[in-house]
Amino acid sequence: MLNRVAIIGVGLIGGSLAAALKSRGHCFDIVGCGRNPKRLAEAQQMGLLDRWETDWSLGVGGADMVVIGVPVLSMEAAFRAIAPILVSKDAARATVTDVGSTKVSVLDAARRVFGRVPAGFVPGHPIAGGEQSGFEHADADLFVGRKVILTPESATAAGALAGVRAMWEAVGAEVVELAADRHDRVLAATSHLPHVLAYTLVSALAKSSERDEIFRFGAGGLRDLTRVASSDPTMWADICIANAAQVADALRGFGAMLEAFMQVLQRGDHAALMSYFEQAKQTRDRYYGKASD
Amino acid sequence: MLNRVAIIGVGLIGGSLAAALKSRGHCFDIVGCGRNPKRLAEAQQMGLLDRWETDWSLGVGGADMVVIGVPVLSMEAAFRAIAPILVSKDAARATVTDVGSTKVSVLDAARRVFGRVPAGFVPGHPIAGGEQSGFEHADADLFVGRKVILTPESATAAGALAGVRAMWEAVGAEVVELAADRHDRVLAATSHLPHVLAYTLVSALAKSSERDEIFRFGAGGLRDLTRVASSDPTMWADICIANAAQVADALRGFGAMLEAFMQVLQRGDHAALMSYFEQAKQTRDRYYGKASD
Repeated sequence: MLNRVAIIGVGLIGGSLAAALKSRGHCFDIVGCGRNPKRLAEAQQMGLLDRWETDWSLGVGGADMVVIGVPVLSMEAAFRAIAPILVSKDAARATVTDVGSTKVSVLDAARRVFGRVPAGFVPGHPIAGGEQSGFEHADADLFVGRKVILTPESATAAGALAGVRAMWEAVGAEVVELAADRHDRVLAATSHLPHVLAYTLVSALAKSSERDEIFRFGAGGLRDLTRVASSDPTMWADICIANAAQVADALRGFGAMLEAFMQVLQRGDHAALMSYFEQAKQTRDRYYGKASD
Repeated sequence: MLNRVAIIGVGLIGGSLAAALKSRGHCFDIVGCGRNPKRLAEAQQMGLLDRWETDWSLGVGGADMVVIGVPVLSMEAAFRAIAPILVSKDAARATVTDVGSTKVSVLDAARRVFGRVPAGFVPGHPIAGGEQSGFEHADADLFVGRKVILTPESATAAGALAGVRAMWEAVGAEVVELAADRHDRVLAATSHLPHVLAYTLVSALAKSSERDEIFRFGAGGLRDLTRVASSDPTMWADICIANAAQVADALRGFGAMLEAFMQVLQRGDHAALMSYFEQAKQTRDRYYGKASD
């Protein structure tokens, strides 16, 4: 149970967390922190926020939990804005967490601002949300059954970690702990690479002189496959910069596999194509169940 | 209204067509042709077929419509099996169509068998079905609202074309005509390329030592993005061979775009990444509506 939660960056994730905490009675008071008074007022009108502040150091005052939901390259600015209050006596109880899609870069930002990773900061990443963005799509059940990865450091306070874990479990999520660098490597493969492929597929098809027919006849499969290419560009540009080395590694692995496929295709080797498709199908069916399930 | 329809290859598409025609009373009698008596008997037991034959020349006797639903590299064998009956007086009324995902290769197969594309043959491709295969998943409404592309040649009889069009419209599909080579180019981009990318994504991720975490944390987005990688390997190996040049072209276009992205990523150029993602998002939103729709 939390008294006051401050959410910096009231987007899809921040807004959904607000809705989820409120609807489950897990906190009394939610303060939204952002830049745009009009948007913050709308979020309050929607019932997501009890109040809001554009001065973030005011917004986090008295909060026992601060959740930072800004794009990952804006984390450093968010840390700087709340640093005065975090080191004051007022905020001795405050735990800080974030919901960024990359974790090493966020830890680096914390080190740049605080000189070290503060004991009260618990890096986190809810694996939820989709191509939609903005608090208009906030969903109190967005985290139900979804995984939240926390990447605590050795300096992380056990109490802070337990508080963040309890918050996510209260909204229905399954909490998993992972080292930050491992998180970034795994997420580069499982999320960042697929997003880049979807954006790149749309970009490649858009160059064709037959793009109208291509997108028209692609409705259905192509529509689904490229859904994530409607995601927020700022969020994804930030992720690519913040996790550049891991994303590049994942892309190189994919590119090498595609090159190998191309050679099989150009040889016209039916048996090798069969084996390529069969192995991939077996892998996918093993992890996600057969198509018929 | 058809009297007797012979379906050669009773899989997901052939079985769904049978169910759709029967449920709408568009034909009296459906004969299934295949190789495996046990499977054919099961399809009959499910109510999809009135009778079945493993001797295809017998199966198509007296049919006014023959639908070939075998993998595209087996089309030639299917044509050969039914050639005797197609050129006999018995089958003067028979129209033949197919449901293959490539069209130039099917026309070439017809030319090899008949010396020309028979006037009664109407090449077709219903854009329906998914990663599932087998008549067990047959769905009488599979074609409702879906597009069926017909690629008639100049020699195609108007009556045959009208009959195939009427059959697909009777089961709820929207029929579109396209030149065969254009079909193959457009489908390479809209369907064959995305399938290869999904198979390749699974293959690339499967090589990682962290594949368990990758697939585990990928549930959701990755599961959806790779769904088509659970498709039938024979079907897709055949398509890749039958449409190799167009698939290779589409892959090269994609590969060049991916390479361009990689360079932007390695430069760490945030503005260029933003523009790349924004343009792709605009393209997708233009064709398929905004994420929020």
